[in-house]
Amino acid sequence: MVDKIVTLAHGSGGAETAALWEAVFGKRFGNATLDRLEDSAVVDVAPQTAGRGSAPRIAVSTDSFVVTPLIFPGGDIGKLAAVGTINDVLMSGATPQYLACAFIIEAGLPIQTLDGICASLAESAAEAGVMVIAGDTKVIESRGEEGGLIINTTGIGVFPGDADNPDNPDNPDHVSGDPAADGIRPGDAVIVSGNLGDHHAAILSARMGIKNAIESDCALLAPIVRALREAEIRIGAMRDVTRGGLGTVLNELAAASGVSIMLEEARIPVSREVRAFCGMMGLDPLYMGNEGKAALAVAPEDAERALALISKTDIGRNAALIGEACAADAAAAPVAMRTRLGGAIRVDVLRGEGLPRIC
Amino acid sequence: MVDKIVTLAHGSGGAETAALWEAVFGKRFGNATLDRLEDSAVVDVAPQTAGRGSAPRIAVSTDSFVVTPLIFPGGDIGKLAAVGTINDVLMSGATPQYLACAFIIEAGLPIQTLDGICASLAESAAEAGVMVIAGDTKVIESRGEEGGLIINTTGIGVFPGDADNPDNPDNPDHVSGDPAADGIRPGDAVIVSGNLGDHHAAILSARMGIKNAIESDCALLAPIVRALREAEIRIGAMRDVTRGGLGTVLNELAAASGVSIMLEEARIPVSREVRAFCGMMGLDPLYMGNEGKAALAVAPEDAERALALISKTDIGRNAALIGEACAADAAAAPVAMRTRLGGAIRVDVLRGEGLPRIC
Repeated sequence: MVDKIVTLAHGSGGAETAALWEAVFGKRFGNATLDRLEDSAVVDVAPQTAGRGSAPRIAVSTDSFVVTPLIFPGGDIGKLAAVGTINDVLMSGATPQYLACAFIIEAGLPIQTLDGICASLAESAAEAGVMVIAGDTKVIESRGEEGGLIINTTGIGVFPGDADNPDNPDNPDHVSGDPAADGIRPGDAVIVSGNLGDHHAAILSARMGIKNAIESDCALLAPIVRALREAEIRIGAMRDVTRGGLGTVLNELAAASGVSIMLEEARIPVSREVRAFCGMMGLDPLYMGNEGKAALAVAPEDAERALALISKTDIGRNAALIGEACAADAAAAPVAMRTRLGGAIRVDVLRGEGLPRIC
Repeated sequence: MVDKIVTLAHGSGGAETAALWEAVFGKRFGNATLDRLEDSAVVDVAPQTAGRGSAPRIAVSTDSFVVTPLIFPGGDIGKLAAVGTINDVLMSGATPQYLACAFIIEAGLPIQTLDGICASLAESAAEAGVMVIAGDTKVIESRGEEGGLIINTTGIGVFPGDADNPDNPDNPDHVSGDPAADGIRPGDAVIVSGNLGDHHAAILSARMGIKNAIESDCALLAPIVRALREAEIRIGAMRDVTRGGLGTVLNELAAASGVSIMLEEARIPVSREVRAFCGMMGLDPLYMGNEGKAALAVAPEDAERALALISKTDIGRNAALIGEACAADAAAAPVAMRTRLGGAIRVDVLRGEGLPRIC
């Protein structure tokens, strides 16, 4: 790595973040769990003297939220801190159960603002059935006129037992159907659960003082996961599409699964408002951050049914089948897109800093 | 609460931190687990369809580290971020097993500095037998000439099974002897595991550019916990003495346990160097932060044996029996101290901001 100092681009969630991971974090902390680079770690919880049965597994995800402004159209940093981490836990197939919340407050933050943000966080946690069990507060010097706020949340989820096999709750294979980054097979359909770019466009608009109708999509993905689980649809891979955008997420999944993904540009859902905003600002919805959107892969025979189930949820009403996986071809791009004009272009990971402090 | 904005005092770990908890966090997030205000939350991990056996319990603790300077005599923010959270988990009686680490980096931080800090964190985690399983990186704008760094760590521990009862690993009572804030009984002896004030004095010296021999005590408390557990000494309450100092910690424990605590000033261990530094700076070791010291209460008949076991460890060589608990007396202070001159003074919680950004 030639970089000598950390830059904003290292926090983009794209290529530079991956490079920093490799140069520092992966080197120092690497292990089989961490190296999977999933949004949640899945580990055993084994009492030391456990003598029988299999240990329950938990999913753990941690995320810091540094978004500015603290309050934005469609949400605030409190809602984001709950939803962002709970969604990461949900994507592993676990049922989110607990949240630890750490507040790093800049001196000068109005207590009323903090209280409103905590109310939002508590509301979203309650909506998800998640209990806040641990907390920490640090106060640092202010850097602006009004104090800022950073929130870190760590979520813990538990895996549901094997409902189909009541005689064997300790069956170690009972969760073999959990989504995983490497779970995409050639032929799988790729679905995105709704319009891209809303959160990114809402944050950027707010920061620029532009008044428009764009609100953050900040929302729990639980209704989508629940609908698919109840219908017993096996999800190959599933990830919430946040920092780095769909382009980055699909590249990560394609690489982990050893497949290529071909997208259809005409099918990628973007609202009229965001499309107009993107045209004006020169932004590409494929690299814009979202906070209530999942990308997932399902077997081709389940595709239509999965899409119908997702579309029936409130947050999934604009879901679309946007492409399919095929056998990896060393000569081709891991992710490509057939454009509206009929050509095919490579869809790379995000490069550069994108929009800093989006989440 | 009359305060309108958050001030540095709200992060002291003392009276103002407690007031902010009550005014905002307790109100918004309060529940039976959180309201215990332990350094770790202890919760069940129950798969939804678990049909038999009792669910394992885990201990969860989260802490953000905002110390400046990032590197100080005796350690750095990486070592602190591992040790601080792992110690909190240890204090619950659980065996620390996993760590989630979130890095909030100011643009401009030299990658070499980050790498060294990660190496320290990894080393301390490995020493404790703890695996780093989840991570997150955010980059924010720099506020100084050289980028700063905040680290949040969340630790997860598992409770050891009932070693004495191998036929019944699912015995729900197998951990009834865990230390808890409300576990002090009248007559219990109060022990502190070593000299007070080292970390605080080291950070303050470093910040003021004073060269002296004072190093942070930043260290894992595992050897002390292990020694006591192996000897099957029941620990009534145990807490690491960090922000807020011994005075604040003992007030919290006395209040939770419904006892009074009487300390002997002459027995409270402080090194000659720190004593001199305190004299010069007008500091009171009772309110200085530490990062490798535990305060604990044991039954009077175990006191001498416990002290001997702690004193045999490297980090506990200056341990001392500093006082005892007695029945709470509404007319008396929850924590008092017999001074060297023979009088008795009230030992209150820390008030005011103490030393900001100490951990």
